Amino acid sequence: MIQPRVLKGFRDILPDQEILRRNILRSIEDSCRSFGFVPIDTPVLEYSEVLLGKGSGETDKQIYRFQDHGKRDVSMRFDLTVPFARFMGAHVNELYLPFKRYHFGKVFRGENTQKGRYREFMQCDFDIVGVDSPAADFEILQLMYANFSDMGIRKVKFHINHRGIFNQFLGTLGVGSKSEDVLRSVDKLSKLGAEKTRENLTEITGAGPAAEILDFIHSEAGNAETLDKMERLAGGASEHSRRLREILQLADAIGMGDFFHINPSITRGLDYYTGIVYETFLDELPEIGSVCSGGRYNDLASLYTKTEIQGVGSSIGLDRLMAAMEELERNNSQESDDSTPSSLRFADVLIFMMDEKYLGNYTRMAQKLRASGLRTEIFPLNKKMGQQFSYAEKKRIPLGIIAGEAEISSDTVNYKNLLTRESIEGITLDRALEQARKDLNI
Amino acid sequence: MIQPRVLKGFRDILPDQEILRRNILRSIEDSCRSFGFVPIDTPVLEYSEVLLGKGSGETDKQIYRFQDHGKRDVSMRFDLTVPFARFMGAHVNELYLPFKRYHFGKVFRGENTQKGRYREFMQCDFDIVGVDSPAADFEILQLMYANFSDMGIRKVKFHINHRGIFNQFLGTLGVGSKSEDVLRSVDKLSKLGAEKTRENLTEITGAGPAAEILDFIHSEAGNAETLDKMERLAGGASEHSRRLREILQLADAIGMGDFFHINPSITRGLDYYTGIVYETFLDELPEIGSVCSGGRYNDLASLYTKTEIQGVGSSIGLDRLMAAMEELERNNSQESDDSTPSSLRFADVLIFMMDEKYLGNYTRMAQKLRASGLRTEIFPLNKKMGQQFSYAEKKRIPLGIIAGEAEISSDTVNYKNLLTRESIEGITLDRALEQARKDLNI
Repeated sequence: MIQPRVLKGFRDILPDQEILRRNILRSIEDSCRSFGFVPIDTPVLEYSEVLLGKGSGETDKQIYRFQDHGKRDVSMRFDLTVPFARFMGAHVNELYLPFKRYHFGKVFRGENTQKGRYREFMQCDFDIVGVDSPAADFEILQLMYANFSDMGIRKVKFHINHRGIFNQFLGTLGVGSKSEDVLRSVDKLSKLGAEKTRENLTEITGAGPAAEILDFIHSEAGNAETLDKMERLAGGASEHSRRLREILQLADAIGMGDFFHINPSITRGLDYYTGIVYETFLDELPEIGSVCSGGRYNDLASLYTKTEIQGVGSSIGLDRLMAAMEELERNNSQESDDSTPSSLRFADVLIFMMDEKYLGNYTRMAQKLRASGLRTEIFPLNKKMGQQFSYAEKKRIPLGIIAGEAEISSDTVNYKNLLTRESIEGITLDRALEQARKDLNI
Repeated sequence: MIQPRVLKGFRDILPDQEILRRNILRSIEDSCRSFGFVPIDTPVLEYSEVLLGKGSGETDKQIYRFQDHGKRDVSMRFDLTVPFARFMGAHVNELYLPFKRYHFGKVFRGENTQKGRYREFMQCDFDIVGVDSPAADFEILQLMYANFSDMGIRKVKFHINHRGIFNQFLGTLGVGSKSEDVLRSVDKLSKLGAEKTRENLTEITGAGPAAEILDFIHSEAGNAETLDKMERLAGGASEHSRRLREILQLADAIGMGDFFHINPSITRGLDYYTGIVYETFLDELPEIGSVCSGGRYNDLASLYTKTEIQGVGSSIGLDRLMAAMEELERNNSQESDDSTPSSLRFADVLIFMMDEKYLGNYTRMAQKLRASGLRTEIFPLNKKMGQQFSYAEKKRIPLGIIAGEAEISSDTVNYKNLLTRESIEGITLDRALEQARKDLNI
């Protein structure tokens, strides 16, 4: 016997969780497609050179890297950004620009598995490439808002900053050469707190500039005030601050202004970003951290093509979002006594098996119920009623149809609401269907 | 510069193909859920011991197998059946039985890449485990039919056989000890032809039995005749032939009989199967081969648990099905002059960018169109009209909305059908929306 264990940091996903995950991905996909975004896919396995870049001589410990049968040096992808860059390098001439794509896929990182981090997880990435404009910057944010609100999450806050303004400010301050270290230090503000960040910044820039940086990254009472302060400290307006203003104006124009929060402490550690950067928090669950982040970059695929590909992108942290959805669901269900919502229900109706000779009748009933939108199954074996009821209970199926000899011969059924335990006996299937719709609110 | 190449046998999936693939998977998922099937997921990477079984000392050449950072012997999954067996071994006590699951996922095989075979491909598996009954056998077939018909493919034929009858026949014939070799040889009938199969069978059983086997595996004019002959040659009726009769009766009872074809030459090579086995062909594209196959097995997870888990399962060959869908689509579009069907369209409406100062207006228009179900995008930069038209053409967007100063100030738009090149100028957005619905038939 082999122990059916999974690798550390990997996991099976059981139906409850997997239904939720697939529902979320479908909702995100519908939102994306309503904005004209299209899906792509790339391989899980690629040449290590392609994923790691030519420079990477030593094996990165986080990468699953090995030699395949053809002695090729291959690696499993660790994100969807590098494969997208490689994809654009390979296909830029057969695609149209601007190109708006989404990509859902598993990625693999052999990193420390503490704190709910997995070694295999699903990423959801979104990008508009081939254009640098306020319209594109705003669209990616608007799409993210649509993603959340289509899932029923309306209380979100986009914490937005602009790398260009930050760099301009550091230049004005005379510490432009240290900008990378400063950005990384500021990026850790929420983790380390103000005091530790002051210490770190002081080490990098000295005490005076550190104090000014702490002033700069502090959000004022309103977006306008914050932006004014940022401009002032950065030495005046620029194309960067104008871009941020334009994005805010667009948000206001369509009534989304309340969801935008200018937060100059958001830097995103990666060198990669050059324009807006942002993270997204849920008003009801701020402690869960950012559920969606991204920003503008000015050369996606320089490793693979001479064509400069500018873009703006975003990524949703699906595991974190799922945890949030479950938490919100729990909070909501404490307020009402709703049963499992329809989208998460495994099935709506169980047709009990009273005798296998009626299987043809049951099958026709099931067909009719399915055609009316009810998820319907027939218990596939003539077992004791107790076992069939217990199956329905474990699978949380709310409705039952029971038809034995008397019912079959009179073309009727007994209808049972398995949650309330109420029964209606000897009714037509049409009547049962009507009652099912009423009981399930559909 | 790094060449943006992909590994041999791997591939990028561009939007045309990926939209089709995702639509197919969503349609299959909806069908599954209407029958009460639920999704699961398992890791891409597992312990080699778990995937290959304890016996496998030597490295199977088809398996991507390596040592991870923790010196664990790991492999990428090569199918979804072994992981499902492991999954059931791990979770049988926390699940209810019968358990009906579907699982879509990528699998990896380093095999020969000739003839459109890929080293990474998507599998779609379906199983009902924990029960052995005609209802379950029939349900898996009915679900497969629902999968195809919900995709618009109604002309399919399930070629069904029963391993039990075949083995009974071989026993009666006195060659029961050679059943594995016989089954494998018969499995290659369609590939090698009757003459070569006769030679092979003669080598295994001698000429007399070989002739009888060739008689047995020949389909008669109707299912009833074939089944009668099989019973007769097998030495009489048995639980196996009764099972097959029951399945046929159920198919007839719900008007599906025409899609079932008893074909005693279908054996499925794998030892694994013990009951019904089947393959599925499209009437319009028989040359494409079986698009869906499966059967009944009597012990799924014996490697991982002492609990006997019987089941019946099915697997859809997604790449083959996609090729078929594209072929059928091409045939259909030659008959009519339909444009891209809505489900495959990248976007319905392009709002042209006449001046970035109108972006707020365009964004509100887009919101309204999206809320009415039209996939709508705004061209994100103020480029020349020619370039914007060319973008719409390349992305095959059928409708355009153009609003410059005159239109914005009078709260109207110009509406363009980009396929017919017809325009309606100076109308309200509501009027344009109405016209769009008419033009797109929605």
